[in-house]
Amino acid sequence: MTEASSTSHDSIRAVRWQGDHLRLLDQRRLPSEETYIDCRSVDDVVDAIRDLAVRGAPAIGISAAWGVVLAARNDPGKLDAALSALRAARPTAVNLMWALDRMKKAIVRNSSADALADEAQAIQDEDLAANRHMGELGAGLLDADTGVLTHCNTGSLATAGYGTALGVIRAGVDSGRIARVFAGETRPWLQGARLTMWELLRDGIPATLVADSAAAHLMKSGQVQWVVVGADRIAANGDTANKIGTYQLAISAKHHGVRFMVVAPSSTVDMSTPDGEAIDIELRSPDELFAYAGQRTVAAGAQAWNPVFDVTPASLIDAIVTELGVVHRPDEAGMNRLFGNVR
Amino acid sequence: MTEASSTSHDSIRAVRWQGDHLRLLDQRRLPSEETYIDCRSVDDVVDAIRDLAVRGAPAIGISAAWGVVLAARNDPGKLDAALSALRAARPTAVNLMWALDRMKKAIVRNSSADALADEAQAIQDEDLAANRHMGELGAGLLDADTGVLTHCNTGSLATAGYGTALGVIRAGVDSGRIARVFAGETRPWLQGARLTMWELLRDGIPATLVADSAAAHLMKSGQVQWVVVGADRIAANGDTANKIGTYQLAISAKHHGVRFMVVAPSSTVDMSTPDGEAIDIELRSPDELFAYAGQRTVAAGAQAWNPVFDVTPASLIDAIVTELGVVHRPDEAGMNRLFGNVR
Repeated sequence: MTEASSTSHDSIRAVRWQGDHLRLLDQRRLPSEETYIDCRSVDDVVDAIRDLAVRGAPAIGISAAWGVVLAARNDPGKLDAALSALRAARPTAVNLMWALDRMKKAIVRNSSADALADEAQAIQDEDLAANRHMGELGAGLLDADTGVLTHCNTGSLATAGYGTALGVIRAGVDSGRIARVFAGETRPWLQGARLTMWELLRDGIPATLVADSAAAHLMKSGQVQWVVVGADRIAANGDTANKIGTYQLAISAKHHGVRFMVVAPSSTVDMSTPDGEAIDIELRSPDELFAYAGQRTVAAGAQAWNPVFDVTPASLIDAIVTELGVVHRPDEAGMNRLFGNVR
Repeated sequence: MTEASSTSHDSIRAVRWQGDHLRLLDQRRLPSEETYIDCRSVDDVVDAIRDLAVRGAPAIGISAAWGVVLAARNDPGKLDAALSALRAARPTAVNLMWALDRMKKAIVRNSSADALADEAQAIQDEDLAANRHMGELGAGLLDADTGVLTHCNTGSLATAGYGTALGVIRAGVDSGRIARVFAGETRPWLQGARLTMWELLRDGIPATLVADSAAAHLMKSGQVQWVVVGADRIAANGDTANKIGTYQLAISAKHHGVRFMVVAPSSTVDMSTPDGEAIDIELRSPDELFAYAGQRTVAAGAQAWNPVFDVTPASLIDAIVTELGVVHRPDEAGMNRLFGNVR
């Protein structure tokens, strides 16, 4: 219903099918360069996913779906090998598996490149529509003159477009409810500094960068009423795994009476995972903490502990927003009402 | 009484009087280079303080005291001008003013270079002794098999030697009570990554670097029992201003039942400041969040909010450790008992 306004800050598409190949915005080079990678084979797509040229769970899933289309066009006898290669490109990405499972079912129905292109396009279109719908649902929870703080990048760069948490921010800015947007840097990869700030500037949304460690002081200053973040996996009781630092934001938000919203497509909800304790947290190389923008900052011989995600317990979350609806003050019962029959 | 053991991890001196000039370890170049600056005039010292070659409130105060000695040696008629120039080098540093006030009183007694050198040496020696004593007091609060998390740099690099919060960590490692040491990166200047990790490695104390935003997840993992930090200013009710991010650590510590210790010399306590609300928080240039080592990480045109300090309310602090004693669960009454008659 707010289609016109909801697209006024929405110019970026990181994943585009060009009729015979896939064009990806190379996110490794942002914000200093806006360059594109043309993928003409499934191997090109595997490389782009593995090397992080494309990132963000939905964007990875959509790219992989188009990778299957490229395989069908180039080498239709090797579709199974293509699926396996894509699946191994980022083995822990839930949306990647979800999109490839869906393409696998489509192959069973009709393995022609044209039919598979229809399915990939459907996955992409549905993601964009889901994001727009979540944007409206989430923005509807905000009062007038709201300040929001977000973390990592959950925008057009991470999805088919519009974004999840950044979609709520786009919709809230369009509806006039959001008056202030803050983005945390998101160490160690600086997705907030490098990507979210680029995306918001590019789409004309005034935003202010803060160090991750300044979030509590920001909340105390009264400039922020909601923290709005995405999710990598949501358990059956509402516990939510997301980028490292999210848990700390949720604790500080509770301490200050700032509200906390998680925005993610229903494909992120995993009802087979009972709670956050069952979610494995990936530890990445200490090297990511030893340099900043390619410049060594830590003495040789140092050790580091570098978890990529953390788990925010449902008790610290005020609302989980999905395209199927909103779960307020999530718990097992509330999650079950909305997602009990989904899978 | 534990002199032998308390010096076994204590090899670094950032400020050294060389008989006729002052030698400063250039902290801007750590950890990649260990280079020294020889200051032969008061102007050299002013430059070193202003340009952050020397940092850390006690180390700045001691350097300024030696700057007065250099002025007395080179140009004894201009001691007042020297005091003014030093005072203006970092106008918000409380310890700088404290050290210069003390040198001013010494000038009134005897303005000879030798007499002033005795006073500067006394300031330096007293700081080291205070740090050793705080180390014992703070380490005495720890149980066996304790893990600690610290923030910023509060060590030999920031003081005459041994350090404040890092002094407690040195003493706790020496006494065998500390089993695990974690250091936060401390954006935006990365004092934890660049300086604390260098200092601990250099002195043979195993330490692990974490992103500032990983602190809550670290606490949840059970690896940390105490957060141990320094202070830039402590108000009459125990509210404590310290490096940005400290407040967030205190909130997360409370949430997890992790205890929180502030370690600072009594010269950091300002009984004329009633509480944290009365402490002005310095905002620095957004540029500090936009680039590192000349490498731009944020799109042109971005805004940032860059407070350098935050205030941790006394209610989140378990112990304030000074060379005069420990205030447990600080409040106005407890602070007044220890510091009511100090100034």
